[in-house]
Amino acid sequence: MSFQGKKSIPRLTSDRLLIRGGKIVNHDQSFHADLYVEDGLIKQIGENLVVPGGIKTLDARGLMVLPGGVDVHTRLQMPVLGMAPADDFCQGTKAALAGGTTMILDHVFPDVGGSLLAAYEQWRERADREACCDYSLHVDVPRWHERAREELEALVKDKGVNSFLVFMSYKDRYQCTDGQMYEIFSLLRDLGAVAQVHAENGDIVEEVEAEAVFRAITIAKQANCPLYVTKVMSKGAADVIAQAKRRGVVVFGEPITASLGADGSHHWSKNWAKAAAFVTSPPISPDPTTMEHLASLMSSGDLQVTGSAHCTFTTAQKAVGKDNFTLIPEGTNGVEERLSVVWDRCVASGKMDENEFVAVTSTNAAKIFNFYPRKGRVAVGSDADLVIWNPKATKTISAKSHNLLAEIHGVPRGLYDGPVHEVVVPAKPGGGAQARASCPGKIPVPPVRNLHQSGFSLSGSQADDHIARRTAQKIMAPPGGRSNITSLS
Amino acid sequence: MSFQGKKSIPRLTSDRLLIRGGKIVNHDQSFHADLYVEDGLIKQIGENLVVPGGIKTLDARGLMVLPGGVDVHTRLQMPVLGMAPADDFCQGTKAALAGGTTMILDHVFPDVGGSLLAAYEQWRERADREACCDYSLHVDVPRWHERAREELEALVKDKGVNSFLVFMSYKDRYQCTDGQMYEIFSLLRDLGAVAQVHAENGDIVEEVEAEAVFRAITIAKQANCPLYVTKVMSKGAADVIAQAKRRGVVVFGEPITASLGADGSHHWSKNWAKAAAFVTSPPISPDPTTMEHLASLMSSGDLQVTGSAHCTFTTAQKAVGKDNFTLIPEGTNGVEERLSVVWDRCVASGKMDENEFVAVTSTNAAKIFNFYPRKGRVAVGSDADLVIWNPKATKTISAKSHNLLAEIHGVPRGLYDGPVHEVVVPAKPGGGAQARASCPGKIPVPPVRNLHQSGFSLSGSQADDHIARRTAQKIMAPPGGRSNITSLS
Amino acid sequence: MSFQGKKSIPRLTSDRLLIRGGKIVNHDQSFHADLYVEDGLIKQIGENLVVPGGIKTLDARGLMVLPGGVDVHTRLQMPVLGMAPADDFCQGTKAALAGGTTMILDHVFPDVGGSLLAAYEQWRERADREACCDYSLHVDVPRWHERAREELEALVKDKGVNSFLVFMSYKDRYQCTDGQMYEIFSLLRDLGAVAQVHAENGDIVEEVEAEAVFRAITIAKQANCPLYVTKVMSKGAADVIAQAKRRGVVVFGEPITASLGADGSHHWSKNWAKAAAFVTSPPISPDPTTMEHLASLMSSGDLQVTGSAHCTFTTAQKAVGKDNFTLIPEGTNGVEERLSVVWDRCVASGKMDENEFVAVTSTNAAKIFNFYPRKGRVAVGSDADLVIWNPKATKTISAKSHNLLAEIHGVPRGLYDGPVHEVVVPAKPGGGAQARASCPGKIPVPPVRNLHQSGFSLSGSQADDHIARRTAQKIMAPPGGRSNITSLS
Amino acid sequence: MSFQGKKSIPRLTSDRLLIRGGKIVNHDQSFHADLYVEDGLIKQIGENLVVPGGIKTLDARGLMVLPGGVDVHTRLQMPVLGMAPADDFCQGTKAALAGGTTMILDHVFPDVGGSLLAAYEQWRERADREACCDYSLHVDVPRWHERAREELEALVKDKGVNSFLVFMSYKDRYQCTDGQMYEIFSLLRDLGAVAQVHAENGDIVEEVEAEAVFRAITIAKQANCPLYVTKVMSKGAADVIAQAKRRGVVVFGEPITASLGADGSHHWSKNWAKAAAFVTSPPISPDPTTMEHLASLMSSGDLQVTGSAHCTFTTAQKAVGKDNFTLIPEGTNGVEERLSVVWDRCVASGKMDENEFVAVTSTNAAKIFNFYPRKGRVAVGSDADLVIWNPKATKTISAKSHNLLAEIHGVPRGLYDGPVHEVVVPAKPGGGAQARASCPGKIPVPPVRNLHQSGFSLSGSQADDHIARRTAQKIMAPPGGRSNITSLS
Repeated sequence: MSFQGKKSIPRLTSDRLLIRGGKIVNHDQSFHADLYVEDGLIKQIGENLVVPGGIKTLDARGLMVLPGGVDVHTRLQMPVLGMAPADDFCQGTKAALAGGTTMILDHVFPDVGGSLLAAYEQWRERADREACCDYSLHVDVPRWHERAREELEALVKDKGVNSFLVFMSYKDRYQCTDGQMYEIFSLLRDLGAVAQVHAENGDIVEEVEAEAVFRAITIAKQANCPLYVTKVMSKGAADVIAQAKRRGVVVFGEPITASLGADGSHHWSKNWAKAAAFVTSPPISPDPTTMEHLASLMSSGDLQVTGSAHCTFTTAQKAVGKDNFTLIPEGTNGVEERLSVVWDRCVASGKMDENEFVAVTSTNAAKIFNFYPRKGRVAVGSDADLVIWNPKATKTISAKSHNLLAEIHGVPRGLYDGPVHEVVVPAKPGGGAQARASCPGKIPVPPVRNLHQSGFSLSGSQADDHIARRTAQKIMAPPGGRSNITSLS
Repeated sequence: MSFQGKKSIPRLTSDRLLIRGGKIVNHDQSFHADLYVEDGLIKQIGENLVVPGGIKTLDARGLMVLPGGVDVHTRLQMPVLGMAPADDFCQGTKAALAGGTTMILDHVFPDVGGSLLAAYEQWRERADREACCDYSLHVDVPRWHERAREELEALVKDKGVNSFLVFMSYKDRYQCTDGQMYEIFSLLRDLGAVAQVHAENGDIVEEVEAEAVFRAITIAKQANCPLYVTKVMSKGAADVIAQAKRRGVVVFGEPITASLGADGSHHWSKNWAKAAAFVTSPPISPDPTTMEHLASLMSSGDLQVTGSAHCTFTTAQKAVGKDNFTLIPEGTNGVEERLSVVWDRCVASGKMDENEFVAVTSTNAAKIFNFYPRKGRVAVGSDADLVIWNPKATKTISAKSHNLLAEIHGVPRGLYDGPVHEVVVPAKPGGGAQARASCPGKIPVPPVRNLHQSGFSLSGSQADDHIARRTAQKIMAPPGGRSNITSLS
Repeated sequence: MSFQGKKSIPRLTSDRLLIRGGKIVNHDQSFHADLYVEDGLIKQIGENLVVPGGIKTLDARGLMVLPGGVDVHTRLQMPVLGMAPADDFCQGTKAALAGGTTMILDHVFPDVGGSLLAAYEQWRERADREACCDYSLHVDVPRWHERAREELEALVKDKGVNSFLVFMSYKDRYQCTDGQMYEIFSLLRDLGAVAQVHAENGDIVEEVEAEAVFRAITIAKQANCPLYVTKVMSKGAADVIAQAKRRGVVVFGEPITASLGADGSHHWSKNWAKAAAFVTSPPISPDPTTMEHLASLMSSGDLQVTGSAHCTFTTAQKAVGKDNFTLIPEGTNGVEERLSVVWDRCVASGKMDENEFVAVTSTNAAKIFNFYPRKGRVAVGSDADLVIWNPKATKTISAKSHNLLAEIHGVPRGLYDGPVHEVVVPAKPGGGAQARASCPGKIPVPPVRNLHQSGFSLSGSQADDHIARRTAQKIMAPPGGRSNITSLS
Repeated sequence: MSFQGKKSIPRLTSDRLLIRGGKIVNHDQSFHADLYVEDGLIKQIGENLVVPGGIKTLDARGLMVLPGGVDVHTRLQMPVLGMAPADDFCQGTKAALAGGTTMILDHVFPDVGGSLLAAYEQWRERADREACCDYSLHVDVPRWHERAREELEALVKDKGVNSFLVFMSYKDRYQCTDGQMYEIFSLLRDLGAVAQVHAENGDIVEEVEAEAVFRAITIAKQANCPLYVTKVMSKGAADVIAQAKRRGVVVFGEPITASLGADGSHHWSKNWAKAAAFVTSPPISPDPTTMEHLASLMSSGDLQVTGSAHCTFTTAQKAVGKDNFTLIPEGTNGVEERLSVVWDRCVASGKMDENEFVAVTSTNAAKIFNFYPRKGRVAVGSDADLVIWNPKATKTISAKSHNLLAEIHGVPRGLYDGPVHEVVVPAKPGGGAQARASCPGKIPVPPVRNLHQSGFSLSGSQADDHIARRTAQKIMAPPGGRSNITSLS
């Protein structure tokens, strides 16, 4: 992992905050305590904390303090037919913060046949410039070629990328053959990265998601590579993952805001009125019981994380496909609504408790992609990415009284009006709410943390780890012979 | 919860230890750090710790530092036909420590029709006097009667007991009817306690464990009470639990050392040579694939904890049943072997990693029975119950160089010779290794911590929790409507 | 098996019929052929049959010729609170014939503690006098006592009864303990009879059908006795049966008209308007997907037969429970609607073909209860119980042109108006349509065939079987060690 | 369907046989009766049959009379590396008869890119000349091309072929892409034929049978075409079939003699001593519990038929691959052992009764491939292909006293020595035992019946069926919308 630049940017002196009386909720326990934040880190947790005088204090009595949400799947720069998504890094990350998500994992989508490294640099440059919250990058592999192998190695070793996505659909465009999948998975296993698949049987018809998941699992098992299935949309696909898990396969499943909150016939947000808005791939299931089934499997641990697959296009952009359905740019929103939808479907319905909610919206993602416990946990030493959650209120105004707190409002798109909440974002070096507020005008903003660049070591281990490690450790054989990336428990 | 006596017994000044260079393994992450222990608590974790001069130091480089094992099921005082088990609290807890277990949960077994409270007091008195490690108590309910209801309430409210066991077998002795089970479960739900069942269909034949588990789950679901199934011995029973979990039922399953490490035809320890030694209830499955199946379901999270059901009788005692098989005292050993067997079956076989191992041997038990994170986690503020684990060595001598470290050797019974390890036990007030060493002679030993007596609050919350709570909180409805005792994730 | 009386009653000379051009549908094949009936038996099947001159001919071109339906579960004499059902043997069997069912299996319900034999005789006397179609009798065992054992043996050996029902619900009235079930099942196994259970956990609450089924299966497996579950009402119960079947247990499941055709919120017949009309036990599932699930499991062979559990009470009778829900007489109609509902749910929906339809409405029942191939198959030598089925027509008038054909109209209760059909009932000795038409006036009608009385041998074997057999053969061990009563394939 | 030649070859006058006192066993019932055979057909079944004087009589008291076995999968002409199998049509069908199989379904294997029709004619010519028992032909499609489409249509319409096999393995040789499979399956659906797959994921590794089955099922479901999976070798593949069946997919599974009777470590026949003898594809599972699992799923109806995949090579032939494992000609024997292995695994073990045995060895195959009830049933009008089965004897000599009875001995290859039996083969026109005995010398033998050539209509319907039909009817929509080829019940 490289340590390029920007590490010692001076912190603002005002970057201090005391949160009092909240209920701190982690994936494994809840407890009441005060919490002191300084320099973007959680410095103290406990009673009667000794803190500097005159600092800002937030009263969180009756509220929950959660680790900030981690959205495992966004596509804020996804190019489709030469068009860019309506929500770019600036708008998209503002929406994320408005919804309680403090870190996103965006997908780099290289040109077919183009350089993976160049695309990665392009994404980073844009994200560094515009993103209002922390981010990391997955790299998609839209076409496999020999040079890609070298680039992939470089991305892991030099850039710290640890997850790559291949496509099982989009025949004649991006689709990977089974043989290529086996080759790529084997390489990723050697590099210690996670293999992601967009699972559809591209050879036949677009709907056969479960078959593709079964096949991907089989190949991953042959290659002995951990597998991560993006956008689990159907009961069949989810069941295939659950069964494989029970046979000992290391596989993760990612339902998204849309599959948890919508079905083919009903909306969970009123401005999704037009059919085109629902065009996604795999498609949103027409089976109205899918949402509940996915929520149940998340609650039993068979599915582990939630993403948004946020990739929005304006109605004008969608209209590109008005005469040819297959040209409609795919994608839905969800980065802002994700936490509320999961709370509504899983917690309010009684399937999960608050700790499990934290697990599927934040902690598990941090574990799988190796940011835990820097992200995904409210603990001394962790990043001060916090959400003040009020499950009872139907609407809460974000705190405006302190410059640590982002002046985040719901991105004005008339969406979900369920439980809302406050987001506590640590002051980004050289940034802050004011800077972010200006991003629509594209005023250059000093980069926020790029986790690929940081000194943070993977595998949940702390920086003082004695043995030399790099990304690859993540799937190195532990004493028992299996990767500890499965340690969601 | 009461706070009787013994809280301010002065600590030994020598009660300080620095463990350097070990790999700290919790259920959710592993990392390398030093660890400083004082007054029986973990005081610091990190690099370059500032510690008092001249303290003892233990070099743990290349070794793992685990939270001490929690054995969820022992029967060290179980009276059978007027006989006491061969391993009493003194011998049994010494065996526990020798095997890496620093806390046991023993079952109080009242006389049929007798007072539950009186039995509880009797167990506590014995345990306080003799036990060499921390303990807590489950209370069995061998016969239901109206007075039992009041006693049960008193045990929860005044004594802090939070789990009670009913029997579905042993007809005409202890067997509970379905109606009584429903009544008891409903009461336990109201009290915030966990219902445990010894699951066999006592009305028909002794083998039908799966049926009894299915029935207990049905009744617990009707009563809306969390269920905990002791001694999961068969694939059928385990599968029924896994399926119910997937339907959203809150149920926990406890495979034991014997069901994980032995089958009806083979031994995992050579001095189990006599058939009588294997008499247990439910019986050890004759199906040789049972062990692997139970290990797989532990690894997928469908079973959560491991106990030993340690209850040993000498060959002479077993011989009481030499002419009548049904009179053979039931029970096997396992309190010492448990961690080694689980490591062997689950980690060495590649089913689990080190974090999952900690979960099923320690953390999950602490969560379910509300000792977490005081037990079950290596963290600042937690009890300094630690195991130095060397998975590579086949035999390791316990450290003798420091008086904090119990001079624990394998209890001389010629058992399992798999991986062995060191146990770090904090100095018990007024106790210590010397005192424990004398227990075979029954020299009075000052009591160790009885967790029912401590100020430790349940539900994983810390003592500074703002809202008044007691045991019952454990199943209080969280915002989402379900108990957070399921938060093993 | 006894051969009392009535065997050589002279046949009517007009008892001859030629059915031309129909498509004969058995459970294993369909084919076009003519069919000649004489003396209540199928005499010839084929092309260009040589038949006596001047006989009646029915043109069945474009229609299906099915074996008459066998309703495995009616309660036409069920006494409830001193009331008799609205549809007695006369009305009920007329309704059966109107719906394509030519044989019913009615449940004898003895007084609690009363004589099973006496009740059986009482039922037979009533059925012989009033029934318009063939019938056989199951005997319920509402309370187990030592004398019952002798009576049960007598019923099998002297009366040819081969199935007995025990109750797992109705605590303090009829409920059997697990121990009694084991005892009864063991006796039935020795006698070669089938054990039927009404599965609910009577000890706790009335809804827990799946638990009771699981328990009954466990006990039946222990006793090595074939099990038959009446009134499968829920998905859970059906799944438990399907899983047990896959583990090799000999178990049969009987969904009924009401569970296939109705849910708690919708009716399949308009005069079920009042809530009381739906009171049954186990209750009709409120889950609207239950109907489809049961139909799917019938189609995959996991459930095998369909009954009606027909037991109707007038609104006035139901009103007995107007102030106390538990006093509402339980039961629904269904004997007339059964075939139409199964066709609608299973065949019209594409789950089954015509052969599978015959299997679940007729053949499988005949096999399980040992009337096959006398019943349940259109074959030379079989009884001429035939249904002319027109799946395309929504309404068909029963043929009136021939006295062999019962002038059966839908029993005027304003029910299901789906596909209707003609019923071909062989002339009953001394009976016929005219006689049946008069039954409301209770004019004595010579008895139709009572299969318990006939020379028909069980187990699907023909009368000329060389080895001596009786009912018990049904579960005698075949060479492979298992009963051939499972041969639904 | 064509009616070329050979239909009115005169029967031998001696072609008459009375079988007395046997137990006739069909898939749906067993009964004792005499049976009269003439002209290769069953003419009478019953008591006190009126038969011509002086005919031969066979005493079958204490024995079972079964419909002759149908082996759904042989490869008696399979060319491998220019070599022909050791057992050709002559030797192979003699072995079949010796083992109780009276009809085989052999696979035509065209040259890659060659004419399907020409290959079919070549197979027919050889089979007509050499086969000693009835046969039918599947046609393999080793490479898809546009001309193949026309040939496939011609084979169905002109030759009566109704099943075609595609390969999912043997990459770069025969492997079909998913897109081609969808195209072929769609065509077969339109033609009314069954799609067979040899299921392995040829793109990756040879072992991944379950994945290939899952994929084939998905594609078949999309194409709405019945699917038949040859050579089910693993538990995973069998489970995938069973689960799909429960979701309503029309899919059949064919375990073979080798997968039912052998595992990777043990032999069921002593002359399979060399490892090369076990080389098959998919491979015989190394999991020793596979055999039992497949037998259980056959018994629960999830798998339906058994074949042998008989394709033998001499040790000298196998030695072609002595230095390159992949060159070892694949295939095992099994055509003679099949019935004995199934009886041993399924009936002797208690999983099946005699009727289910008949179903999986004969009846179900006849139904699926549309020869029922001409084959697969002992009934008047059916072919007189009968097996006299003595499950108790370990060795029985074939009857020699009558020229109707083939003088068949076990083909001298030192195989399975389990239960043996007599085979009753109707005199083939111009053939008979003598002719067959001479076949090793390749003396021309008049052809036996080729069912593709006969006037027998498919779909289990009889010849006098009124509506015009051809093969395609098999999957024509019945009133309920689904094919009746699923009517194994």
